Amino acid sequence: MEVTRKNYKDSLKTVYSAIEEADFLAIDGEFSGISDGPNVSALTNGLDTPEERYTKLKKHSMDFLLFQFGLCTFKYDQAKSKYITKSFNFYVFPKPFNRTSPDIKFICQSSSIDFLASQGFDFNKVFCNGIPYLNQEEEAQLREQTEERRNQHANGIGTPSFISPSSKGPAHVPEEHKDFINKVIQKVEALFTNSEKTVDLEPCTGFQRKLIYQTLNWKFPKGLHVETVETEKKERIIQVSKVNDEERKRREQQRLEREQEELNDAVGFSRVIHAISKSGKLVVGHNMLLDVMHTIHQFYCALPEDLQDFKEVTRCVFPRLLDTKLMASTQPFKELINNTSLAELEKQLKESPFKSPHVETAEDFKSYDTAQEQLHEAGYDAYITGLCFISMANYLGSFLTPPKAYISARSKLIEPFFNKLFLMRIIDIPYLNITGPDLQPKRDHVLYVTFPKEWKTSDLYQLFSAFGNIQVSWIDDTSAFVSLSQTDQVQIAMNTSRYAESYRIQTYAEYIQGRQQNKEKLDQTPKTWGDDSWAKSHYTPSSTSGFGYTRGLRKRSISPVQGEQGTGDGLITDGWSHYSYPDNTSSKKMKTDAKSEQANAEAVESKTSEGWLKTADSSHPAGLSPVLDEEEEGGGS
Amino acid sequence: MEVTRKNYKDSLKTVYSAIEEADFLAIDGEFSGISDGPNVSALTNGLDTPEERYTKLKKHSMDFLLFQFGLCTFKYDQAKSKYITKSFNFYVFPKPFNRTSPDIKFICQSSSIDFLASQGFDFNKVFCNGIPYLNQEEEAQLREQTEERRNQHANGIGTPSFISPSSKGPAHVPEEHKDFINKVIQKVEALFTNSEKTVDLEPCTGFQRKLIYQTLNWKFPKGLHVETVETEKKERIIQVSKVNDEERKRREQQRLEREQEELNDAVGFSRVIHAISKSGKLVVGHNMLLDVMHTIHQFYCALPEDLQDFKEVTRCVFPRLLDTKLMASTQPFKELINNTSLAELEKQLKESPFKSPHVETAEDFKSYDTAQEQLHEAGYDAYITGLCFISMANYLGSFLTPPKAYISARSKLIEPFFNKLFLMRIIDIPYLNITGPDLQPKRDHVLYVTFPKEWKTSDLYQLFSAFGNIQVSWIDDTSAFVSLSQTDQVQIAMNTSRYAESYRIQTYAEYIQGRQQNKEKLDQTPKTWGDDSWAKSHYTPSSTSGFGYTRGLRKRSISPVQGEQGTGDGLITDGWSHYSYPDNTSSKKMKTDAKSEQANAEAVESKTSEGWLKTADSSHPAGLSPVLDEEEEGGGS
Repeated sequence: MEVTRKNYKDSLKTVYSAIEEADFLAIDGEFSGISDGPNVSALTNGLDTPEERYTKLKKHSMDFLLFQFGLCTFKYDQAKSKYITKSFNFYVFPKPFNRTSPDIKFICQSSSIDFLASQGFDFNKVFCNGIPYLNQEEEAQLREQTEERRNQHANGIGTPSFISPSSKGPAHVPEEHKDFINKVIQKVEALFTNSEKTVDLEPCTGFQRKLIYQTLNWKFPKGLHVETVETEKKERIIQVSKVNDEERKRREQQRLEREQEELNDAVGFSRVIHAISKSGKLVVGHNMLLDVMHTIHQFYCALPEDLQDFKEVTRCVFPRLLDTKLMASTQPFKELINNTSLAELEKQLKESPFKSPHVETAEDFKSYDTAQEQLHEAGYDAYITGLCFISMANYLGSFLTPPKAYISARSKLIEPFFNKLFLMRIIDIPYLNITGPDLQPKRDHVLYVTFPKEWKTSDLYQLFSAFGNIQVSWIDDTSAFVSLSQTDQVQIAMNTSRYAESYRIQTYAEYIQGRQQNKEKLDQTPKTWGDDSWAKSHYTPSSTSGFGYTRGLRKRSISPVQGEQGTGDGLITDGWSHYSYPDNTSSKKMKTDAKSEQANAEAVESKTSEGWLKTADSSHPAGLSPVLDEEEEGGGS
Repeated sequence: MEVTRKNYKDSLKTVYSAIEEADFLAIDGEFSGISDGPNVSALTNGLDTPEERYTKLKKHSMDFLLFQFGLCTFKYDQAKSKYITKSFNFYVFPKPFNRTSPDIKFICQSSSIDFLASQGFDFNKVFCNGIPYLNQEEEAQLREQTEERRNQHANGIGTPSFISPSSKGPAHVPEEHKDFINKVIQKVEALFTNSEKTVDLEPCTGFQRKLIYQTLNWKFPKGLHVETVETEKKERIIQVSKVNDEERKRREQQRLEREQEELNDAVGFSRVIHAISKSGKLVVGHNMLLDVMHTIHQFYCALPEDLQDFKEVTRCVFPRLLDTKLMASTQPFKELINNTSLAELEKQLKESPFKSPHVETAEDFKSYDTAQEQLHEAGYDAYITGLCFISMANYLGSFLTPPKAYISARSKLIEPFFNKLFLMRIIDIPYLNITGPDLQPKRDHVLYVTFPKEWKTSDLYQLFSAFGNIQVSWIDDTSAFVSLSQTDQVQIAMNTSRYAESYRIQTYAEYIQGRQQNKEKLDQTPKTWGDDSWAKSHYTPSSTSGFGYTRGLRKRSISPVQGEQGTGDGLITDGWSHYSYPDNTSSKKMKTDAKSEQANAEAVESKTSEGWLKTADSSHPAGLSPVLDEEEEGGGS
């Protein structure tokens, strides 16, 4: 179903009930661009830390507009043994709702726009009929303004249509407008002596309207109703009416209702996101980190500076997320799927050993034909993403004894994939862990090299030719990470570089330390984003969110190992010693959750009885390294 | 005529000949936004200096996209005694022309987009079928790249389709790609032994393609033609062909021609602007400063830091400009026209004492009906602007003895209006003078006031209530200019403010001095924009530009007066002592023009014989103050 400003209000009930009845939801966003940074490789270095990646995306991707939002709801019909789908394609645009509302500016990236154009994207629908929206702060401001206006009106000062904070005295009327205002006063005085109920003033400038309001307010505090109305010719004129007390009250009531409706209209598309959030249902996306960031940024609040705070906001807005790209890149799927781009994934999941899911489009909804690709329409992409999730979830069921053909969105089997968002092109950290600290791979085989800007990859290969295979991750024109195949080569490289003039080598640890010190210097300036700015939100995490499981799982499937500078209190050596957990770097907030983590340890242990997880154990997370499919470069799916 | 990427190449001849035959041209641009600054009043303070205004527009307006360019050519037909018009509406979009071309990012302002949407603007035409363009630097780079590629190819190293600077040795093939590359080599070796002429390699990643090129280049420097082609499915594959020398040359020739055409296609819409520029014809616009800035910025070069340099670039690109808004705000029109917005101006110029111009749409061109407004389609706005110019020019003819009904675009009567671009909402400087120093009104009745951010205009009125009428020009939340009606009040205000704690008052001179000092501090860092960066342009001012006249006029109609801190060498007192010329602040470049200025003095004097100019004298430039029509707020026309 296509939803624009034109049919938005009428569709809202349908959207709400689809969310309400669904077993899970799939989402997808289309943006006006991906990165305003210098280039994609700078945006996505293969050795970014999760913090770095988050900071880069926040800095270089949030000024684009999410202008199409796809939502597909999936409800399992036991009788038919199939999912019933309802797919929505929302066009979203921050149309200013009145003259004082924020005038949003957003960036467009030519390549993204051109790509969408080539896919038949309808920009006119976005720009002419996009649904407006407000984030929580804007909504609160608007509610406050409305409230203030009401109070002032109730107290008899000001008028609901125009309040100037300086309107408590007689208006200062500049010389050149005095004649004009005097004529208005005469007209209004005449109204009191003649039989007319209403007089329309002549069209005039905004400044003159302001003067009229101030003057009439001051001169006729009672018995008048003054309102700006728009004529058929779209001219704004002032209408002055004589009113008695009863009439006044009736008009006031009408206005209140109108104001409430206008307010809801202004909040617009954000109401759909609020409904998704409140439902607490599983939200599935494909390579969804940018979708999640944009959704929060556009419809909730400015993104926090700090990654930990972002995770906390995300848990509030989307208590349960599942990223199909991450799922497809993880055992047992990793072995079977060699291209995790959405289109390819969908194709592969139709083939053995997977089974095409049984789905049916709900009545009155447009049905998509997956044979005829309509990729990059957000509603279709959300639909396909949901199909992929179902195929993969059901495949997990085949490992059970007895095997199960249908695995619900509430099954424990899929919980290991909850709240882990795929990280594009990071060599050794497959996902961003929303419900806990991130993996900290050892990077003691990595060197940080700086060099003249003329250097190419080949120069680096030459420099390190003695060390066999190396891997180069460009940072910018004059620096790169070089991963050696053997950690013990690091010291040799450091030694030989000591007297080099054209280049400089640091160990990864030295590099991180240097960055940390720089950051600490910067942090001495006060933060602009306070902890409480989103906490004011009236949306709290759903009680069905299941935080415990995922955090528990993390504890089990990837054992914490004492970091090099660590004081870690749990030391378990196993196959994944490549990973360590942050010790003192994990935020204080995490510590408060320690109890619930313990409480869930039992539930976690019980899951080891599930066959497939054992399979996963042996290669997870070392086997998690993402498939770096270049075709997705710059793309969002 | 609507011109998009689809019919652009076929239309180019028509466009060129229309420009060639025209008596004058009218232009108009539509942008994706006006200002990314905090608000319009900050962007256009009533007491900006021309330098300040230029800097603000450059900073806050150039990241928007000029995406529709209107051109209307006017050719006078002596026999019919009417103008024949050809109107073009170009849709413009920076579609990346290949994978390495610049990926332009531009800002959209919701209010502007929403406004255009409400006018029926077709965004799909822009984004799907907009004509691409390059500025001069990009064009030069592309030509250089093409040239380099050709040379390398001629020398037998590299291939035209892929050149890596590191391709001079054998490619370093990472372990995981060795099998793949070896298979490719086997395939190509087989080609030499079998009867096939060509072999298509399998689709692969860009990195693999790079490896293939490097390897084949190294292994088979002769006898092979390697090319990346796109299949019907839009997959990029490598095609390898056996070729003899003759075939090789033929293919090379074909490639050269294709490259040249691709290059022209990439320069795209800029070629139209080059043609306008080269023609040296009078270019008419309405409130055209932003149009001129955007046109130069998008199709020529990044705008210079310095206003003087901008004027120089402008003279090169547009040797003769005329702004109908400035013309309508100047005597003898100022008295007769009370609203200079384009739509209103057009209406008023149909009424007495003006005459509707006689125009006819050229055959095969869409004719516009001025009764049915199609404003804010750039082609229509350009057309209307041209009509306004004709009406006003012809009106000037009525002052001649004997009166003339038709005044050509080459008449001396209109030269006083050349190269003066209307400055929106500056109280005492009506225009930016492209061919000389700007007016420097005395501002010794102006105070610079800083105060707490809670203050409103009414607080300022109250503060200065003892001084009668004042005028407030907001700078930002905490500062404003306050113009007193009497200069001798300034000292009183300064004295009374001495012990004030909440606010602070400076004279305008003190304020300017403070800014100057700040600027000098900043200027100690080197400039990024060199004088020669646009001078490299192969476009030089047309010899028909007529600089002398306008510069001469300036000398005549507004006499230089010794500034307060001036060392002026010419002192003529007359009615306009309110204005002074910069002494040491005028750039060195101006001084080099002194000779030509003198040489034109004579030509200037002769013009005083024209009747209407005498009328203008008495009220010009004091009578030039622009009509501040608020309805145009945020608009560009």
